[in-house]
Amino acid sequence: MSLLVVGSIALDTIETPFDRVEDVAGGSAVYIATAASYFTAPIRMVGVVGSDFPKSEFEFLESRGIDLEGLQVVPGGKTFKWKGRYHYDLNIRDTLETQLNVFEEFNPILPESYKTCRYVVLGNIDPTLQRRVIQSLSKKPELVVCDTMNFWIEGKRTELLETLKLVDILIINDSEARLLASEPNLIKSARKIMSLGPKTIIIKKGEHGALLFTNDTIFSAPAYPLESIYDPTGAGDAFAGGFIGHLVRTEDFSDENMKRAVIYGSTLASFCVSKFGIEGIKSLSDVEILGRYREFIELSRIED
Amino acid sequence: MSLLVVGSIALDTIETPFDRVEDVAGGSAVYIATAASYFTAPIRMVGVVGSDFPKSEFEFLESRGIDLEGLQVVPGGKTFKWKGRYHYDLNIRDTLETQLNVFEEFNPILPESYKTCRYVVLGNIDPTLQRRVIQSLSKKPELVVCDTMNFWIEGKRTELLETLKLVDILIINDSEARLLASEPNLIKSARKIMSLGPKTIIIKKGEHGALLFTNDTIFSAPAYPLESIYDPTGAGDAFAGGFIGHLVRTEDFSDENMKRAVIYGSTLASFCVSKFGIEGIKSLSDVEILGRYREFIELSRIED
Repeated sequence: MSLLVVGSIALDTIETPFDRVEDVAGGSAVYIATAASYFTAPIRMVGVVGSDFPKSEFEFLESRGIDLEGLQVVPGGKTFKWKGRYHYDLNIRDTLETQLNVFEEFNPILPESYKTCRYVVLGNIDPTLQRRVIQSLSKKPELVVCDTMNFWIEGKRTELLETLKLVDILIINDSEARLLASEPNLIKSARKIMSLGPKTIIIKKGEHGALLFTNDTIFSAPAYPLESIYDPTGAGDAFAGGFIGHLVRTEDFSDENMKRAVIYGSTLASFCVSKFGIEGIKSLSDVEILGRYREFIELSRIED
Repeated sequence: MSLLVVGSIALDTIETPFDRVEDVAGGSAVYIATAASYFTAPIRMVGVVGSDFPKSEFEFLESRGIDLEGLQVVPGGKTFKWKGRYHYDLNIRDTLETQLNVFEEFNPILPESYKTCRYVVLGNIDPTLQRRVIQSLSKKPELVVCDTMNFWIEGKRTELLETLKLVDILIINDSEARLLASEPNLIKSARKIMSLGPKTIIIKKGEHGALLFTNDTIFSAPAYPLESIYDPTGAGDAFAGGFIGHLVRTEDFSDENMKRAVIYGSTLASFCVSKFGIEGIKSLSDVEILGRYREFIELSRIED
């Protein structure tokens, strides 16, 4: 029941009104795999780095039960670098610099041992590559979860629509959903996207929580009322990791369990934003995760 | 256990991408009293209109059990007029015209029969007038609910702070909460506002639902996933009316019942936005209200 995670691996430089960190490990695959590692093992990771990626970060990922056989290290190459600055209102960020480096030529190749993975998370990369990953598997996986972004929706719509046909669960934010569906109403957008392939849609709304749409239900999950948010980087990927982690752990894809998975995703995202980079999700205990999960449940519980 | 409602009474001209209506009855007092009328009677209304206010609207309000003894009709005067246009994204609106007319000199005077009201909703008017209403009562009311807006927070802060000391529950939207508290984080804003007087704060987040803060709890209420929103005008006031209506009906101010009141408020707001002006809340049945209430509960229910 192993989980395959593909996505970007980066060295991030992040500025917020509170602090600044330089060249810390990031990228969608790192956040997703780290968050999921609290729920399931092994996690098979596919990505590319240069020879500048710190050895300590490999060690950290391996310590979390993440299999790096599918990690390509380009000798003499430089890792994908991203530099961003958040405003006083942490919902707004400027990308100051993007150096694709080895990520520009990334071609995800699955080691033999990865090809039988039954669960797949496609982090936010070129939809053509996402599709190639699914097609490289030796048999149809049980569950394919996919993330994407404005850049691909606008620039590679046709490719993305092809990929969506192979996706079970699309995780997307509200503005991306509206863009993908060409529809301002979020509920109508979700319905439209469900006709493109994914049976389940999760729309992330940042500080306003998330909405889960399945064929039979709509579930509204609250956001955790954090008094201090230090760095929103990776929150969406931490959400995806917690979400799929709970589903793989339980192997229960009922609507009711999907709701719980959304809360576990929200839980990991809330830890993520409470510190810089992946720090917030580097060393959580089961007790902390379950405690936060229960607080989430309390937050919207009402005795009728 | 009668409920006193004070606020603006207006003739609204509303344009949305879907339709346009001209000179329809509106204003905070009308929306609040109409929404509350599904829960309690009589409702004592205080406001001012000109002689141009349609007789049919008086009749409608009276048919809903709303006592108009405190309604001032200025002979030969013109009713407050507001004209607004909503964009394709209904979250954005432009005020095209505001004619204060008789509202400019509004001085809320309570008839003797109103002075024993135990429950008060202060719709969004000048905080000095809001305070005058509370001070006109013959004894301290059981519950004072108050709404306000950016205009007063920026222009009459000192007056507003005086009024807030007399308020039990403040209902405010997210940007107003941040402005009032001078604090970007919503949770910290709520805590700060609670130190100004109100023991309970409700922060409305439009299409993202609402947050209830009491001394002991935070409750996150979802928004109803409406596929069609026709006109957001008055939604916040309909919320306030449904909220106080349920509290007056039950006379139970526990945290648990406050949560239910928030859902009843959300229920009335969801009906309000589904048609133009007050049309959406003009003739609801108990079955419709309870049905929508239950749908709201389902929306965030999770079996742990």
